[in-house]
Amino acid sequence: MIKIGLFGYGNLARGAECAIKQNPDMKLTCVFTRRDPSTVKTVFEDTPVYKTDEILQHKDEIDVLIMCGGSATDLPGQTPEMAKHFNIIDSFDTHKNIPQHFKNTDLAAKESGKVAIISVGWDPGMFSLNRLYAGCILRDGADYTFWGKGVSQGHSDAIRRIEGVVDARQYTIPVEEALDAVRSGKAPELSPRQKHTRECFVVAEEGADKARIEKEIVTMKNYFDEYDTTVHFISLEELMRDHAGIPHGGFVIRSGKTGKNLENTHIIEYSLKLDSNPEFTSSVLVAYARAAYRMNKEGMCGCKSVFDVPPAYLSDKTNEELISALL
Amino acid sequence: MIKIGLFGYGNLARGAECAIKQNPDMKLTCVFTRRDPSTVKTVFEDTPVYKTDEILQHKDEIDVLIMCGGSATDLPGQTPEMAKHFNIIDSFDTHKNIPQHFKNTDLAAKESGKVAIISVGWDPGMFSLNRLYAGCILRDGADYTFWGKGVSQGHSDAIRRIEGVVDARQYTIPVEEALDAVRSGKAPELSPRQKHTRECFVVAEEGADKARIEKEIVTMKNYFDEYDTTVHFISLEELMRDHAGIPHGGFVIRSGKTGKNLENTHIIEYSLKLDSNPEFTSSVLVAYARAAYRMNKEGMCGCKSVFDVPPAYLSDKTNEELISALL
Repeated sequence: MIKIGLFGYGNLARGAECAIKQNPDMKLTCVFTRRDPSTVKTVFEDTPVYKTDEILQHKDEIDVLIMCGGSATDLPGQTPEMAKHFNIIDSFDTHKNIPQHFKNTDLAAKESGKVAIISVGWDPGMFSLNRLYAGCILRDGADYTFWGKGVSQGHSDAIRRIEGVVDARQYTIPVEEALDAVRSGKAPELSPRQKHTRECFVVAEEGADKARIEKEIVTMKNYFDEYDTTVHFISLEELMRDHAGIPHGGFVIRSGKTGKNLENTHIIEYSLKLDSNPEFTSSVLVAYARAAYRMNKEGMCGCKSVFDVPPAYLSDKTNEELISALL
Repeated sequence: MIKIGLFGYGNLARGAECAIKQNPDMKLTCVFTRRDPSTVKTVFEDTPVYKTDEILQHKDEIDVLIMCGGSATDLPGQTPEMAKHFNIIDSFDTHKNIPQHFKNTDLAAKESGKVAIISVGWDPGMFSLNRLYAGCILRDGADYTFWGKGVSQGHSDAIRRIEGVVDARQYTIPVEEALDAVRSGKAPELSPRQKHTRECFVVAEEGADKARIEKEIVTMKNYFDEYDTTVHFISLEELMRDHAGIPHGGFVIRSGKTGKNLENTHIIEYSLKLDSNPEFTSSVLVAYARAAYRMNKEGMCGCKSVFDVPPAYLSDKTNEELISALL
């Protein structure tokens, strides 16, 4: 049994707690939280919860530690720190800072002789893998990534910061015509506005100036000004009833040309349609936890990305079983 | 520059000849044929062609040999034989014989210290990879592979063997309703008939009994009897004009459940839409040729499948470039 620990306990960790139960070769041995453990209600009653500062006392109970904090303030410090002691997996997704995060984590993991796989999930993660595979096969071509339909946490938060807003949910929606144009192999150039629309469901305070709120949303720099944005004002009851889920998904499409005169067109498309973004992401993290464990058992160490991991390492099946069942 | 040789010269090799030109770190140094080299017309005029039995005289000109023969009679002998001398890639696709082919090739490649990657292409190949990744992420779920719309060479050949048939083209077509049912997450059980239809374009000899030919097609065991099959009789001119291409493609879809009570559904879908089956397949072979070269340079040897190859090895970019551009 591979012993898994979870560092931090929010939506992602709750998803991982469930995912580990679906993997018969794994066992969740401990959850670490900054909060008072007695106040944390886990998905399954028998999950042990400890304070983060006690983690080194539980070293023998952990083969792989899954980092479940956020990319903004948690993971940049926590991942390299924990890689000094554990094989780790994280889902660091602040794209421009990944190279630095990789370096910091690599240094720590090489010193400890552990394996750290960073930026695991679906984007970065499975989408990145599909961009890599498709680009290596179709050398002359163009890549497109579309997100949605799904809830963007960052955009929902940005709306909540507007005066007079009680709560909000923002959906990112790919534009169907853009998807069709890409699938036709035309390799169009697409602006942000042509690729995605944004739909917002907003609960306003009683008596709030809805026209002002709507204007503040649709003109918000970096978040909404480059998109066609629709704003719906709804009641808190409606928000709770109709928008409680955290669905997401998206598309990675590459169109490319082959042949003597590049006369033939090919389309590679990968898509996800997810009822629960954190549960799917944590399912990816758990599969890569197995890979980290196996790679470390074989003597590997240092920081890795999904690009470095042989696919077979994600599976609990033998190579013979994989070849017979899936090749 | 990675020096590539091609063993056998048919549609697949012609595709590889084009694909190598699209990869600036590679060079096609020689093609080997059983025919008289002077009778072989290559895609590019300057491609050197030699007799297969002269191959060992060209050992220094080849870093990786791409096996371009067929799975029925060529590859079972040729791949292990050539793995005694070269890093090799093949596209062996007789599913039930892959384990034996793997063993034979592994023995040869371990003795020579070379890397052999077998069963590379899209199915087996990219489809296999997607079945593996999706199955490791969504543990509780169901897998579906659909092929088409595309030309099935085997089924076209089977029609050509019927008395009174001059030429024929058979398209395998996925049933749209089946695709939709799978995408809905319902995990239906589907019979061959429910998944695919077969459409045949047949050129009959003048005066041939078309009713008999049609009946022989639709009742043919293992090929057509389990499917809804449509037969169109057309002229040779129409066949040449409208059915000269070798398009193919397909879908790998997994639906799976996560959550405490498996209450959330997720769909992972990978699809290909290919103008030219052999050109796409050979583009995959060429990318894996780079991987074989790099893995062997690092001291690895033996037989591998796509499951064993870290994705980064397919690329000519450095890890730093991959992380910045694609992760």
